[in-house]
Amino acid sequence: MPQFLDRREDGFEARFTELLGMKREDSPDVDAVVAEIIADVRTRGDAALIELTAKFDRLELTSATLAFSPEEIEAAVAKVPEDERAALELAAERIRAYHARQMPEDARWRDASGAELGWRWRPVGAAGLYVPGGLASYPSSVLMNAIPAKVAGVERLVVACPTPGGAVNPLVLLAAQLAGVDTVYRVGGAQAIAALAYGTETITPVDKITGPGNAFVAAAKRRVFGRVGIDMIAGPSEILVIADGTGDPDWIALDLMSQAEHDESAQAILITTDAAFGQAVVKAVEARLETLERHAIAGASWRDFGAVIVVRDLDEAAALSNRVAPEHLELCVADPDTLAEKITHAGAIFLGAYTPEAIGDYVGGPNHVLPTARSARFSSGLSVMDFLKRTTLAKMTPEALKAIGPAAETLAISESLEAHGLSVRARLDALNVGEG
Amino acid sequence: MPQFLDRREDGFEARFTELLGMKREDSPDVDAVVAEIIADVRTRGDAALIELTAKFDRLELTSATLAFSPEEIEAAVAKVPEDERAALELAAERIRAYHARQMPEDARWRDASGAELGWRWRPVGAAGLYVPGGLASYPSSVLMNAIPAKVAGVERLVVACPTPGGAVNPLVLLAAQLAGVDTVYRVGGAQAIAALAYGTETITPVDKITGPGNAFVAAAKRRVFGRVGIDMIAGPSEILVIADGTGDPDWIALDLMSQAEHDESAQAILITTDAAFGQAVVKAVEARLETLERHAIAGASWRDFGAVIVVRDLDEAAALSNRVAPEHLELCVADPDTLAEKITHAGAIFLGAYTPEAIGDYVGGPNHVLPTARSARFSSGLSVMDFLKRTTLAKMTPEALKAIGPAAETLAISESLEAHGLSVRARLDALNVGEG
Repeated sequence: MPQFLDRREDGFEARFTELLGMKREDSPDVDAVVAEIIADVRTRGDAALIELTAKFDRLELTSATLAFSPEEIEAAVAKVPEDERAALELAAERIRAYHARQMPEDARWRDASGAELGWRWRPVGAAGLYVPGGLASYPSSVLMNAIPAKVAGVERLVVACPTPGGAVNPLVLLAAQLAGVDTVYRVGGAQAIAALAYGTETITPVDKITGPGNAFVAAAKRRVFGRVGIDMIAGPSEILVIADGTGDPDWIALDLMSQAEHDESAQAILITTDAAFGQAVVKAVEARLETLERHAIAGASWRDFGAVIVVRDLDEAAALSNRVAPEHLELCVADPDTLAEKITHAGAIFLGAYTPEAIGDYVGGPNHVLPTARSARFSSGLSVMDFLKRTTLAKMTPEALKAIGPAAETLAISESLEAHGLSVRARLDALNVGEG
Repeated sequence: MPQFLDRREDGFEARFTELLGMKREDSPDVDAVVAEIIADVRTRGDAALIELTAKFDRLELTSATLAFSPEEIEAAVAKVPEDERAALELAAERIRAYHARQMPEDARWRDASGAELGWRWRPVGAAGLYVPGGLASYPSSVLMNAIPAKVAGVERLVVACPTPGGAVNPLVLLAAQLAGVDTVYRVGGAQAIAALAYGTETITPVDKITGPGNAFVAAAKRRVFGRVGIDMIAGPSEILVIADGTGDPDWIALDLMSQAEHDESAQAILITTDAAFGQAVVKAVEARLETLERHAIAGASWRDFGAVIVVRDLDEAAALSNRVAPEHLELCVADPDTLAEKITHAGAIFLGAYTPEAIGDYVGGPNHVLPTARSARFSSGLSVMDFLKRTTLAKMTPEALKAIGPAAETLAISESLEAHGLSVRARLDALNVGEG
């Protein structure tokens, strides 16, 4: 049974705060091990990578077989059933179209002083995408990470994906192919992150690393941050559904379970203005849990971290949701657009009863890599912006320098940065501008 | 004497690679100390903050005096000379105007399937700006951090600035006032970062922390990353000047010194197509170093990390510059715009002889918080985007769900995420769409 909270009850605030602060993840301290692995790959390159892969993935590689060959990829993707290929192609096309709209504009203008100002966006040179192996090896994640990079114009895009015992999901390779990935390396863990960041004899280093991973991968990303760019450190998935009781309780139950089935640490919360509807959803969840393939995982998540919160009105629902800052927010209400206006923090909003969150995981178009663990308060989902960087531009004319240079000189002197001031003064002297 | 490299000489590549890989900064391992400080502030709040401030800043505070009072701020800013106030106001106005142009647009559209898609930008709720104390307590940095946050619409903006022995730069307080900062706390170091991230009895936690700091501050920011957002971890400053020999060697010398005077670890590099001009710049630097107030710092930086690189043409210059990915790039050439087109990685570009980098530090308009240590390969300077986050939007109509839902169902099944598939299937059944 999930928690049941009522906004009107005594002690609500304390219980809600506890829910917010709930620690859902054990963070094993793997930092020391990861530091060693990174140092080893930096020192010994391919040799370290090959040894670590033999040890952790029970797979014997050579420098020549670190990457999948084009023939191996062709052979694997040929096995993908036609309906799955078609679905993946539709997803790729829709994700591409959505992200193409995110491309920011360059700008350049002249201001009143005569100064020309602006900025330019350019792609990072090379990006590395981490794809987990085993159970969580999702082709949809390959599309969600690789397509924004390609849309941004990244020239070289590589994937690192562990293949324990040599097993690989053909759909992952097909997704990489559809997204335009150049090379897929069959390495994983902290050693893969180290190789992407620092390079080895075979792997050319990249500038940016994105993609989800286990505790070792997360710790390694945190360590190489600065040497390369990284995306967020993802935590377990979350969904918050706001419902006014107009929908089908079973639909909501399935939406909650579609997060819960990811991970025992996932969290599914329902906020509703209708207590009876809340009870009906709980009942529907129980019925669904009886037959769900992943009932053990989904059931544990629902029992340990699930919650149903009854509120007096949708304003209260929005206010509580903003305190949660959920990764996924479904608005299953009669007028979702009005309610959405009251939402300040959420990774993605799914509007109305016909937009289950699962649409967003695959074919909606927006990215499914979204801020978890309340980080939607300050961060965004993955986008083309993660693969672009801005260079600012400034060009002074002599007139512009005359107009604003003296102020720069004054501030430089006030900050005791003499050479800063002199670099402006030397030009002003040539332009016959007296000292301020 | 700086290094002198010539593109045509044997061994150039090895020497240039060495220059690129030069370690300019000792990173003392303060992580264990910082972890303790953070834990202490989390546990004991104000009491820890007050004790640590007494210990590190020799300043006795109480909860009531952690923040400057409005009267203290008024009294301090009243002391600022009129010309400095006017210069700071001009800078603030220009920085505001530049950053206002960065505000991104919301978007919403309907695609061919009938799905409504889009995104919205919202400001982070509260931001904390770290301002170093002592020598590096720069009012210009206050403006560069605080104004983008205000332009983005951040509701609550606080500054943390250590005041060793109680000393404070009145210009820092004036800059905070001009930028619209709500509260200035006189605390610094890892303890200030911990208080901003986790809160104390007196300090309400923020969602995003930006601003430069020493090794303790940097380590603390890295540790609280995830709990709150942070900006980049800044390293020592760098400038790269590309000159074709058309300018005044003394101007270039001053521009190089204006980076070198920041820090013994700063780096100033000249790339020129004209070897004689390169020698003239070196001579001009030597002459300037004789009288510069900060000649010890600037001289050490120039001697240890400075370089003059002679190339055959501007294409070579651009290619080498892109490998450096400098924080600041000055194009002191006859046609800077054409050369700028060849630049792929740089934090900020200053075009032409009348745009010394110091203009950008104060009054140009673009931000002076820029990516260091080659991170312009993958990251951008500070901007309004650092204080905004994007929420993606998706709204399916029944028709849109009919069109794209079956593909989502297929992919969910292929990823063994049954509840994902069922959440789509339940709606499709209601719409009488058969299984794929």
